[in-house]
Amino acid sequence: MWSYDKITDYLMENLGEKRFKHSLGVMDTAVELAQKYGENVEKAKIAGLVHDCAKKLSGENIIEICTKEGITLEDEEKKYSYLLHGLAGRILAQKVIGICDEDVLNSIEFHTTGRENMSLLEKIIYIADYIEPTRDFEGVDKLRKAAYENLDKALLMSFDNTIKFIIDKGGFLHHNTIEARNYLISRKG
Amino acid sequence: MWSYDKITDYLMENLGEKRFKHSLGVMDTAVELAQKYGENVEKAKIAGLVHDCAKKLSGENIIEICTKEGITLEDEEKKYSYLLHGLAGRILAQKVIGICDEDVLNSIEFHTTGRENMSLLEKIIYIADYIEPTRDFEGVDKLRKAAYENLDKALLMSFDNTIKFIIDKGGFLHHNTIEARNYLISRKG
Repeated sequence: MWSYDKITDYLMENLGEKRFKHSLGVMDTAVELAQKYGENVEKAKIAGLVHDCAKKLSGENIIEICTKEGITLEDEEKKYSYLLHGLAGRILAQKVIGICDEDVLNSIEFHTTGRENMSLLEKIIYIADYIEPTRDFEGVDKLRKAAYENLDKALLMSFDNTIKFIIDKGGFLHHNTIEARNYLISRKG
Repeated sequence: MWSYDKITDYLMENLGEKRFKHSLGVMDTAVELAQKYGENVEKAKIAGLVHDCAKKLSGENIIEICTKEGITLEDEEKKYSYLLHGLAGRILAQKVIGICDEDVLNSIEFHTTGRENMSLLEKIIYIADYIEPTRDFEGVDKLRKAAYENLDKALLMSFDNTIKFIIDKGGFLHHNTIEARNYLISRKG
C-alpha cells in the first residue's frame, strides 16, 4: 500500500482543494467515531481519507473503470454515474493505492448509497462523510450530535434526509439506500 | 363474474361504511379518468370498486390467503402485511368475485405500491385511490388538478408524496414504489 504521504499527494492532485479538505475532514471525523465506537482507528483513517478518490472522474471514466473490472452496469447506473464513484473509488483504492482490506474497500464502495446490514466501519465512513466539519446544511448539527450518541439513529436520519433531498431534486433513488434504511427500520422494532 | 349488485353487497358487508364509500369514490374517479385518457370504462369501474376488497382482513388472514396460493412471502412482507392487501385483494377478486381480466387484477394488486412500467389502467386506479372525493390531505387539490392534466406527472407527485409520508412515520418503503418512481424519473429526461 502507498504511504500516507503518497496518498495525500495523489488526492491533492486529483481532487482539487475543496474536495481534498473534505477528505481530510472525513478522515478526522472517522477517526473520532472509530475511537468512540471501538473500530480500528487506522482503517477508519485510511478509508476516510481515500473514500472520494474517484469523485472528480468524468462519468465516462467511472463507467470505463467499472466495466474494465468485468462489472455489469445497469442502464440506470450508467445514466446516474455519480452513484458509481464509490465503486470506482473502491477499484482505484485497490488497484492503484494498493489497499487490500475488504472492510475498508467496502466502506469506500458504499459511502454514498449505504447498503443493507452495514459493518461498523461502513457506518462510520458514511456518517463521517455526512457530518465532517466543512458540511453545512439544515439539520447538520442535530445529525452531528446524534452521530456521537447513537450511530444507527444518525444513520437512519441520514438516509431519510438523503431520500427526501433526492426526491425534491427529482433524482434517482438507489435501491441500496432504500434497503439500508428499511433494514434499520425493521431492526428498530 | 358476480353481478355489480352482488359485488356491492359483498363490499358493504366486508368493508364497513367509510371504506365502502371510499370504494365508490375510487370507482367514480376511475371512470372519469378512463373517459379522459381513453381507457376501457367498464374495467376502470370494476377495478375501482373492487380494489380494496381485502382491506379489512387481518394481517394473519392476508398472509394466509397469499401463502395458500403458493406465493412465497419475504419476512418483511409478513411484518408489514398491510402492504399485501393489494395482492390478497387480487386473489379474492379472482377466486371469489370471478374477475378474469389480467389488467384489472394487476390494478388491484398494485394499487398501493405501484410498480415499474404501469399500464394505463393501473395508473388510473392508483391515482383514483389517491384523489377520490373523500380524500383530504395537504396538497390533494393540486394532485386532483394534475391528474386531469398529466397522469404521469400526477403519479410521480403521488409516489414522492407517499415516500415522504412513509419516511416521516418511520414506515417500510416498498421496492415497487421506489422502482415505479425511478421509472418515471428516468423516462422524464
